[in-house]
Amino acid sequence: MIEGVKQQKWWGWGEEGQAYSAEGKPKFAPFVKKMTGIDIHAPVKPVPNFEDLDVPVSILGDDLRGTLVGILGEQYVQTDDETRVVHTFGKGVRDLMRVRRGDLGRVPDVVVYPADEAQVAGVMDAVVEADGVVIPFGGGSNIVAALEAVPGESRAIVSVNLGRLNKVLEIDEQSGLARIQAGVFGPDMEEQLQARGWTMGHHPDSFVWSTLGGWIATRSSGMQSDKYGDIADITRGLRMVMPGQILELRPLPSTSSGPSVREMVLGSEGRLGIITEAWVNVHRIPEVREIQAYFFPDYYAGLRACEQVVHDGVGVMMARVSDAIETQYIMANGKESKSKVSKLANAGVKKLMEAKKWDLGQIAMSFIGFEGTANDVRYKKGLVAKIVKQHGGFGVGSGPGALYDQKKYDTPYLRDFMLDRGLVCDVSETTAPWKYAEALHRKTTKAFNDAMEEIGKIGVVFCHISHSYHSGACQYFTFVVNDDSETAEHSYDVAKRAIQQSFVDHHATVSHHHGVGEEHSPWMAEDISPAGVFIQRKLFDGVDPGGNLNPGKIVHDGEPGISSNSPDA
Amino acid sequence: MIEGVKQQKWWGWGEEGQAYSAEGKPKFAPFVKKMTGIDIHAPVKPVPNFEDLDVPVSILGDDLRGTLVGILGEQYVQTDDETRVVHTFGKGVRDLMRVRRGDLGRVPDVVVYPADEAQVAGVMDAVVEADGVVIPFGGGSNIVAALEAVPGESRAIVSVNLGRLNKVLEIDEQSGLARIQAGVFGPDMEEQLQARGWTMGHHPDSFVWSTLGGWIATRSSGMQSDKYGDIADITRGLRMVMPGQILELRPLPSTSSGPSVREMVLGSEGRLGIITEAWVNVHRIPEVREIQAYFFPDYYAGLRACEQVVHDGVGVMMARVSDAIETQYIMANGKESKSKVSKLANAGVKKLMEAKKWDLGQIAMSFIGFEGTANDVRYKKGLVAKIVKQHGGFGVGSGPGALYDQKKYDTPYLRDFMLDRGLVCDVSETTAPWKYAEALHRKTTKAFNDAMEEIGKIGVVFCHISHSYHSGACQYFTFVVNDDSETAEHSYDVAKRAIQQSFVDHHATVSHHHGVGEEHSPWMAEDISPAGVFIQRKLFDGVDPGGNLNPGKIVHDGEPGISSNSPDA
Repeated sequence: MIEGVKQQKWWGWGEEGQAYSAEGKPKFAPFVKKMTGIDIHAPVKPVPNFEDLDVPVSILGDDLRGTLVGILGEQYVQTDDETRVVHTFGKGVRDLMRVRRGDLGRVPDVVVYPADEAQVAGVMDAVVEADGVVIPFGGGSNIVAALEAVPGESRAIVSVNLGRLNKVLEIDEQSGLARIQAGVFGPDMEEQLQARGWTMGHHPDSFVWSTLGGWIATRSSGMQSDKYGDIADITRGLRMVMPGQILELRPLPSTSSGPSVREMVLGSEGRLGIITEAWVNVHRIPEVREIQAYFFPDYYAGLRACEQVVHDGVGVMMARVSDAIETQYIMANGKESKSKVSKLANAGVKKLMEAKKWDLGQIAMSFIGFEGTANDVRYKKGLVAKIVKQHGGFGVGSGPGALYDQKKYDTPYLRDFMLDRGLVCDVSETTAPWKYAEALHRKTTKAFNDAMEEIGKIGVVFCHISHSYHSGACQYFTFVVNDDSETAEHSYDVAKRAIQQSFVDHHATVSHHHGVGEEHSPWMAEDISPAGVFIQRKLFDGVDPGGNLNPGKIVHDGEPGISSNSPDA
Repeated sequence: MIEGVKQQKWWGWGEEGQAYSAEGKPKFAPFVKKMTGIDIHAPVKPVPNFEDLDVPVSILGDDLRGTLVGILGEQYVQTDDETRVVHTFGKGVRDLMRVRRGDLGRVPDVVVYPADEAQVAGVMDAVVEADGVVIPFGGGSNIVAALEAVPGESRAIVSVNLGRLNKVLEIDEQSGLARIQAGVFGPDMEEQLQARGWTMGHHPDSFVWSTLGGWIATRSSGMQSDKYGDIADITRGLRMVMPGQILELRPLPSTSSGPSVREMVLGSEGRLGIITEAWVNVHRIPEVREIQAYFFPDYYAGLRACEQVVHDGVGVMMARVSDAIETQYIMANGKESKSKVSKLANAGVKKLMEAKKWDLGQIAMSFIGFEGTANDVRYKKGLVAKIVKQHGGFGVGSGPGALYDQKKYDTPYLRDFMLDRGLVCDVSETTAPWKYAEALHRKTTKAFNDAMEEIGKIGVVFCHISHSYHSGACQYFTFVVNDDSETAEHSYDVAKRAIQQSFVDHHATVSHHHGVGEEHSPWMAEDISPAGVFIQRKLFDGVDPGGNLNPGKIVHDGEPGISSNSPDA
């Protein structure tokens, strides 16, 4: 561990000691039991021992090691086993399954911690000169296998941890722009910005354990992107270290200077270079921030309400609607309130739903967020209230939204808690035009359920709308498979494939904001057409003819639906 | 001429018979005289004779000609001189100067008019197979030399006119998306959309004589882009013919599928292929549309008001502020009203300005547009009124805005009118962060004036804010040089260079929405850094190793500030 550089535990999300707790949530265990057959109170597998792992020996040669030490200093060139294992994978559930059973694949040979751009450039040039492989590493939260080396890679693999590049360098207060180093984690960045009255407003689920550079390299999106834009909108300029040169894109509101190089770096996942800093849009902390909760008679009513919110140009900060099962999950995962007022309110809501003759098994919960002046928020809430009513829903105030806001980064801990108990959980998200949104939800749900039936496993899938655009929405699926056997990874594979294939088959993309990595690359030709993959390949090959920059990611040579990480490959 | 395919006259903007008129504008002649020394009533040069041109013979070989005729039919393979000359240049003032004096450069050898994508693909493959050059052609309105061949090109040059691909193919009403062929002209497209209650809301100055495919290929922006987005935002999916394959990007609201291929096609200016159709965002025609006029004590007050309009998140349709000289030009170019009410109103405005002790030589006129429900427009106008007042301005109602709206596409006719009278006029536009906007305006104005002084010419430059973004604005400069001599093109060059150099020297881009072509390519390394040019070059070379696709555009080998079209090259 390097002082000042946060590191997740090798076998799960976050730091040691942080974990999900079901305490005070009496409805949670019965819900999980009913949906998956698992008793969360049954004994769990012990935490794996690092000593049980068989970590491959580093093949870093003395020459390259010497050069790296010369650039960075001994302390910042780490070859110990635990550091290398932490840098082997991201934190997808497949990663956790593999690392926990000691299937380490191709562990990086060295992890380096440059202090500044000059050191990044020094490392880049030294590794390319030595024909090694460079893999940039931010928070290590990636879930699409963008951080791991190609199996059987024979060259030295250098993981470049950007954690020491963690400063907000300057704020241009007139333009609403900040220059920020790529290795900064979400909370550290917001702390530095908010201390001066500013916010970037970018809040992916991974916020606590992901970095600005990682967001840019994967085309990230956040919970408040309906207002603040995706990272592709937020990022106005950047610097990227390439072999022998540094790309410098000055911050520009918009430009027509040919095919956008900025947009080529966005989503490049280390295949073009290492992003060292970026100019991003920042905003004054808004006067008012409010998340209101609503109920709809069913998910599709909520979906149509989101559609109208954007088509009417309301301008909300977020609009989230959960489908029936996710709504039940949210209810079951809530802490039981002891207050009489709260109990009465809940009873009142239930009574109202019954009066409206709603099917309680279909109700959909929604959170819609507002920011701005008090006046703006009042005006927009009024517009939304009308739209919600038009679609048969009603509001229940800001209480549940405040709770949601507190817990919004906790899902990965629950994922680990479930994995300890024999439930494989993961997420897949996508966008499609509004026209196809409802069918996409139905068909993807069915594809998953059919796949589970086929392999004879109990599984559950649920979904929410996470982002709305003029032409369509992001639907965010969570899926859970009950499989604690040797074949759990195969079951995961079947589930994941069914969902991804349903996406590309039904007018949707492989991913709205998780990127491609190795995991999604088998569907790229179906997503952007073979000619699109051809163009990306020519870009990567042209910039990196030796294949030294995080090779094997995004473009894929094999069959659709077969990842080279898959046990079926 | 091909039936159904509109064609501009070879020596100027638009069709024969359409022209600017100063009739009923008594203030215009004195204004021009004062600013430039030119008497617009003096005799003008006669329209040039096509017969006086010495048009180079087509070098199209019989084999390729035969193949093209086989694909398209005899009628759609044109090699007559006038068709070829019309397809030689865009409509920049340098183009007009050259074509009028018979300096034709490298005239295309053949112009083809494919009827559909299959024919485009046939042409593409035939030309690449024969090692010819393919240059796509839409409305021919380009002003950055993106349509002309490399001087001295020895291969056969095939200009591919997309004019027969002119249909709105389908509208997905739920998603607000339309699939439209690339060769459709602005008015024809809007007519087809509006007949069904929809609009795309994209209105570049060139609207009447430009096409959807051209907008995409140059990263265009329109007068209402503050609401509707730039063409890069509007374009959600597309098809592009490449050698041997067709790129198909389905319409998606957003995606993280690697470096955006959609964004590589945007701004590619024919260097990656020929765009045949696109899926674009379309909107219901708004209930209310209103353009309000305002006055500010000076341009910079107006600039700061625009800044606040975006930072407060008002959401206007357009926000335009003219600097002092452009304001005087607008006033002088207005038709004299004969109504007493109007005269009284004008007198009232003047009185108010005097009461506020404004320097009448500095006042800045502004147009701010609103769209939405009546309620929305009322609310937003209220917010803007407060902001205008805070910055010392006041509103004068919707009368001048309605006039602006009627005349908004007329500027190129005025440009031609001026050229007939010995005034070389052109435009350069750019974006920079708000922090640098005021200095950019001052310094660019000074750079132009200094350049004119240096060459001893009378010139005038003026500017308006045309687009506002969170982090900055587009400033749109118009410049005029009094030079009717043999060296007029040199004078133009000096003026254009001074302005473009000022842009890249002062935190601004080579172009916000006119693209690069050959004209702006000498500044690209200063705009996006040498590594950015390297990346673009690798992309072009990888996709088009033979250099058959509109070569020589965007990336540049020569010195900054020296275009190969320039007489100084």
